Amino acid sequence: MFNYYDPTVTAMLYRAEITIKLKNGMLDPEATTIKNALKHLGYECQSVKQAATYELEFTADSRENATDLVNGMCQRLLANPIIHDYDVRITK
Amino acid sequence: MFNYYDPTVTAMLYRAEITIKLKNGMLDPEATTIKNALKHLGYECQSVKQAATYELEFTADSRENATDLVNGMCQRLLANPIIHDYDVRITK
Repeated sequence: MFNYYDPTVTAMLYRAEITIKLKNGMLDPEATTIKNALKHLGYECQSVKQAATYELEFTADSRENATDLVNGMCQRLLANPIIHDYDVRITK
Repeated sequence: MFNYYDPTVTAMLYRAEITIKLKNGMLDPEATTIKNALKHLGYECQSVKQAATYELEFTADSRENATDLVNGMCQRLLANPIIHDYDVRITK
């Protein structure tokens, strides 16, 4: 873990944008429901896909460390690697 | 509605990316739960925000028409304008 009291390490605030979507070929009942509901309202869509986005702010001592932290969060909590693909962008 | 049989109108396939998030100041219990769960796993985040993203493909006769269609979909079905802000990007 990051040590706030070690003066040799400079903590920086990073912002990460994480997009989590179902892998290709997975059934997506939520998207199917939305497609049908849009059709009932008169909007005909060829395809509907949905994804979840998370924006996190956290401290890390380098950009590489920040990327590793976010990958860990995705693999351990945010995404289910069996059914989801995820994409991480460190924006600050 | 778009008329597929009118030869004077050329239909084009458009792709729209819609991001729907809670307005500033709204309580976000899902994000709070994720923040707490990440903390239990050893990841301390200053802030966590979540949003839903939809990617739609549909036909329209112009880019302006495509934007109008997607705004209509957001206002009538996808977003709740009282609590959500939404952002539309026509990408193709």
